[in-house]
Amino acid sequence: MSAPEAKRQRTQPPYELLYHPGIPGRGEYIRLVLEAAGTPYSEPAREKGKAGYDAVLATCSPTSTGDADGNPPVFAPPALRVPGAGKDGRALVISQTPNILQYLAPKVGLAPADEADALHANQIVLTALDLSNETHDSHHPIAVSLYYEDQKDAAKQRAKDFRENRIPKFFSYFERSLKGNEESGGGKYLVGDKLSHADTTFWQVIDGLLFAFPKELEARKGEFPLIFGKFYPGIKEEKGLKEYLASDRRLKYSQGLYRHYPELDRE
Amino acid sequence: MSAPEAKRQRTQPPYELLYHPGIPGRGEYIRLVLEAAGTPYSEPAREKGKAGYDAVLATCSPTSTGDADGNPPVFAPPALRVPGAGKDGRALVISQTPNILQYLAPKVGLAPADEADALHANQIVLTALDLSNETHDSHHPIAVSLYYEDQKDAAKQRAKDFRENRIPKFFSYFERSLKGNEESGGGKYLVGDKLSHADTTFWQVIDGLLFAFPKELEARKGEFPLIFGKFYPGIKEEKGLKEYLASDRRLKYSQGLYRHYPELDRE
Repeated sequence: MSAPEAKRQRTQPPYELLYHPGIPGRGEYIRLVLEAAGTPYSEPAREKGKAGYDAVLATCSPTSTGDADGNPPVFAPPALRVPGAGKDGRALVISQTPNILQYLAPKVGLAPADEADALHANQIVLTALDLSNETHDSHHPIAVSLYYEDQKDAAKQRAKDFRENRIPKFFSYFERSLKGNEESGGGKYLVGDKLSHADTTFWQVIDGLLFAFPKELEARKGEFPLIFGKFYPGIKEEKGLKEYLASDRRLKYSQGLYRHYPELDRE
Repeated sequence: MSAPEAKRQRTQPPYELLYHPGIPGRGEYIRLVLEAAGTPYSEPAREKGKAGYDAVLATCSPTSTGDADGNPPVFAPPALRVPGAGKDGRALVISQTPNILQYLAPKVGLAPADEADALHANQIVLTALDLSNETHDSHHPIAVSLYYEDQKDAAKQRAKDFRENRIPKFFSYFERSLKGNEESGGGKYLVGDKLSHADTTFWQVIDGLLFAFPKELEARKGEFPLIFGKFYPGIKEEKGLKEYLASDRRLKYSQGLYRHYPELDRE
């Protein structure tokens, strides 16, 4: 262990990401922030088997009114547990992906220092997560409680609108955000002149969409020169992220938030 | 003007809510925070006619790369403009409903002071806004670009799942959050012992659902005694809110986020 690494492990609280095992999902937005910052964290559901995942599920049990540390119930994973950071030195448990990102980013050195920049980073995170949710709904437009196969016709209609109207609308917004910040960010950063949680979050959405809708994105690359020419390839080379993306800690897409159904993609 | 009111008007920056005129929509979540706090604000689209609404639309123009004050483009209203609060004393413009609420709440005295409580309030706000989004999608499951009439069959399927699975899942979460905080909040407040933006936001979602799905909510009232016995009736009596809800500033529901289609409600 190098000296700076040893120091970070002593001074950072032991962050615990509470999420499903085996899928990148919404947990990935949080992993990318921690990995980009080089911050140690654990994932009980991946490291401690059934007992670890049971602890995750207990936070969002349909009968929970909160935990013994005074934290309210969680609606759905991901949640973040931080021993010692809650009331009276107890564990803090927080949920909702944007809430977790906004809490973590300044603590691990990934949030812009300027207040206006931090607010703008958060607004971009929320917009990227809206696109993430719409991606999910493109294969589940009727109900999360039904199989894809039972809502396939509606999914085809929704995916068509998603590809033709929503992807270009969202990507135009991100392209213009990069353009407006080009003097500072060089097309590589959405806010300011260094990596923030806005970048890692939008990057993950692009990466998921490249898996889910490869033909659609290939056809549209030319419309968004900063996103595909500078941002997407640039962020994946960032320190911390590059090593992580090449490691076996990075989970493969499968049947989660980002799914590849060829019949939903462009023909 | 009373002395405290005069003082507040001198010390509060002139908040400008940039939103569509004529509908409560997502702007209402922000109005409720400002009204509950007794904070003055203006709405250009409601007060300055076409020129006012044009200024709102300019922030989210599909060709904007940001404004002259250094703010990035807005994806969609609502946005909040705060003269003097941006970089170098220029105007700050921020968007995304939860971002605006989280910015405003501590500034107008509506956010919990304790860090853990503030994070929990924000997680509840985000979950209430997820329910708000799912309500919208119950009448527009295929595409926002299509009329309701053109996606009516899919809407019937989605609304059925929304009523049978999603409303009870979300309401159970809020009921349990109220229960876990009952010692402090008495069933009336979601976090701590006084009104926060978590309360105003969830209250507005219930109120919108009572308009959109009156039969479904009537049938379920008994399942959620704190929500319907303490919280919903209690919050509407809060200082600031009571006066606002009785005033003509409170806009009527119509064809926005919350819509009443009898065929989507419980039979």
